Amino acid sequence: MRVPQWIIEKKRDGQDLSADEITDFIQGYHSGDIPDYQMAALAMAIYLNGMSFEETAALTEAMMHSGELLDTSALSRPVCDKHSTGGIGDKVSLILAPLAAACGLAVPMISGRGLGITGGTLDKLESIPGYRTDLSEKEFLKVVDEVGCSIIGQTSTLAPADKKLYALRDVTGTVPSIPLITASIMCKKMAEGLDALVLDVKTGRGAFMKTREDAEKLAKNMVRVGETMGKSVGALLTNMDIPLGHCIGNALEVRESIECLQGKVRGPLWEVTRELTAAMLLLCGKASDWESARETLEDTLKSGKALEVFRQMVAAQGGDPAVCDHPRDLAPAREILPAPSPESGYVTDVNADAVGRAVLVLGGGRTRAEDGIDHAVGLSDLVTPGQSIEKGQPLYNLHGNDDKRIQQARELLRDAIQIADEKPAPPVLIYNRMMPT
Amino acid sequence: MRVPQWIIEKKRDGQDLSADEITDFIQGYHSGDIPDYQMAALAMAIYLNGMSFEETAALTEAMMHSGELLDTSALSRPVCDKHSTGGIGDKVSLILAPLAAACGLAVPMISGRGLGITGGTLDKLESIPGYRTDLSEKEFLKVVDEVGCSIIGQTSTLAPADKKLYALRDVTGTVPSIPLITASIMCKKMAEGLDALVLDVKTGRGAFMKTREDAEKLAKNMVRVGETMGKSVGALLTNMDIPLGHCIGNALEVRESIECLQGKVRGPLWEVTRELTAAMLLLCGKASDWESARETLEDTLKSGKALEVFRQMVAAQGGDPAVCDHPRDLAPAREILPAPSPESGYVTDVNADAVGRAVLVLGGGRTRAEDGIDHAVGLSDLVTPGQSIEKGQPLYNLHGNDDKRIQQARELLRDAIQIADEKPAPPVLIYNRMMPT
Repeated sequence: MRVPQWIIEKKRDGQDLSADEITDFIQGYHSGDIPDYQMAALAMAIYLNGMSFEETAALTEAMMHSGELLDTSALSRPVCDKHSTGGIGDKVSLILAPLAAACGLAVPMISGRGLGITGGTLDKLESIPGYRTDLSEKEFLKVVDEVGCSIIGQTSTLAPADKKLYALRDVTGTVPSIPLITASIMCKKMAEGLDALVLDVKTGRGAFMKTREDAEKLAKNMVRVGETMGKSVGALLTNMDIPLGHCIGNALEVRESIECLQGKVRGPLWEVTRELTAAMLLLCGKASDWESARETLEDTLKSGKALEVFRQMVAAQGGDPAVCDHPRDLAPAREILPAPSPESGYVTDVNADAVGRAVLVLGGGRTRAEDGIDHAVGLSDLVTPGQSIEKGQPLYNLHGNDDKRIQQARELLRDAIQIADEKPAPPVLIYNRMMPT
Repeated sequence: MRVPQWIIEKKRDGQDLSADEITDFIQGYHSGDIPDYQMAALAMAIYLNGMSFEETAALTEAMMHSGELLDTSALSRPVCDKHSTGGIGDKVSLILAPLAAACGLAVPMISGRGLGITGGTLDKLESIPGYRTDLSEKEFLKVVDEVGCSIIGQTSTLAPADKKLYALRDVTGTVPSIPLITASIMCKKMAEGLDALVLDVKTGRGAFMKTREDAEKLAKNMVRVGETMGKSVGALLTNMDIPLGHCIGNALEVRESIECLQGKVRGPLWEVTRELTAAMLLLCGKASDWESARETLEDTLKSGKALEVFRQMVAAQGGDPAVCDHPRDLAPAREILPAPSPESGYVTDVNADAVGRAVLVLGGGRTRAEDGIDHAVGLSDLVTPGQSIEKGQPLYNLHGNDDKRIQQARELLRDAIQIADEKPAPPVLIYNRMMPT
């Protein structure tokens, strides 16, 4: 094996590492031959000196091969997944997976939990009584094959080197590095045996990437790394200055997703979901252009097929499918408190960051990975920019289980919503689309 | 305590750390609360983003205070030491310490062992039968008090955080960082309870700092950090393209040092030693200018007082003082082989790096810290640039104990010495002097 510090020194001095050097290092780190302190030094050198697309692809591949790969070869449909960098009210996966499946794709989605102000798809799904996120690989593939989609949690066999490296990056100041983020996201997705992948790179106050510039870089990097690995990868750059949809909180977001699948919720949530799903259809050859992809998706939604797939997935994973008929019965909170508007006018701004923090203090998120979560709490009926409002009408309904937490959340939300006399221009939802050439 | 990764992130982002942040981090690392991987990430961030003088001084101070400080308050003379960054044939300490003591200074010198091509003062002294380098702190101070100087090895109580950090830097690609080198050198020296310190920063083929530019930076940094800590620190930038003196190897360098103290060896070795000792006299107020310092030193050497101090030091540390009368009897090698010059002319170059490697393969150095050392081997009577030579006269005498190693050393030395018809300009020995303002 190569001497680990020579590899560290090479990156330290701003040189490109070869694929073999990266593979050796990651294998050594995964096996324990290379200690945490050498990996930490290399991670900091990567943070500060960057990595080329080729290096990032090699790092992705090395971490992907640290575990088992999902064998999707028996699935007859094109296999596709979506990954979001996360945002406030981002429940797109719950709608997109059954919608894409209803259009003939296979969607084996391996999802994460929430940390900080960003909620996690698994936490949302677990507010459905009985829903299991810990299927075995065999069960998982069976649900995908029979239903068309399945959403579960990360298994221990999938890219274990990434799990180890992520924990180390978390305590060594090396998280916000574009090549390291790219490799961490892509190694898990590439291990899913996909034909295509769509990335939702969110940017703004409620996103991990605060600036458009950083988000563009990350998106471009992931698309290029996918290409380098011979995969069909597209990315949409989406607005996360304002929350997505009218509900934030775990059970409340499941409610809103089901209402969207029922065709009752339109607006930004549906638009963003439709565009991301359209990208999947395009990448998998199920549509020839954006316009026809949109038409297919509107028709599929209207037909009720997507809701039917969702119902089957919930049932197949042990959950109570009745949630699809009565989504408002899900996990009620003790208190539901409307927040009356102090004036009449148009909503001009809703601060996604403040909303995220408020739901976090209500108990709907976790600050540490080991914290528990309260599925019932959050906000519903949250206004959105452009909406007109009368004085005294609710800006949102606050769902809470603890008076002190409710008080703190209200405090955080005090200046989160802006109202003015003039109707604002509608917010741009999708800043950019990057599709393979 | 501050969260360690916030400190890492601050340095990662190119900001200056406060003295408190640095102290907390080093204390935490020393106590084991901060793991190696966080220290490694910070070290790499320091390597790549640098440190200000103030930060480097705070790091020096924090590492200095990780252990005990030498209490020199009972010594009646000004307390001074010299540190060299190391080079081939660098035996200056053996001459300078007794010479400075003979001029009325107290020199408590804590020295190191050789690693790589650079020899160590302790290894040299240990070629004197009986000489103990492991005195207790009490014994050490007693010898300094009674004799004027003492040379021993690093104790476990002196700046232990530096020892731990150095071992980590060695395997994480973070050794050649000017602030980290500065702090590592200065924390140990500043723990010796000195009034003044002279630094010999060597540069060239046989030195750690290959370029003048890097050596200047390091020297300036150490002088400024000393100043920031309220200490009187001076530095000389000296030539290490060519070996210092005519002997290289442990016992052979002791021989040459004693012959220098006897007044028999002049030339570059004496000149460099005299200038470094003169800087000590200036810093301690024992001389008012370079010229009078030089005169004092020439007189002291001539008087035989410096040799007398050396003799007393050797005796006080358990060594056989007879070495001072018969230095050529010390540790003889099995073979002494002259290397005849292939032509007549002037010596124009002697490659210090090649000479260092040759002595290393003869067994006179170590490649790993745990290796043993052969005190007897090395080169004597090595020519120096400017010297005239007749065909057939020896360029050096090779002292060896093993035929295979002798063969390898000869191979390494084949092109090390250049001869030409024209007499070259004498080499510059001292490039620059930096004294406190």
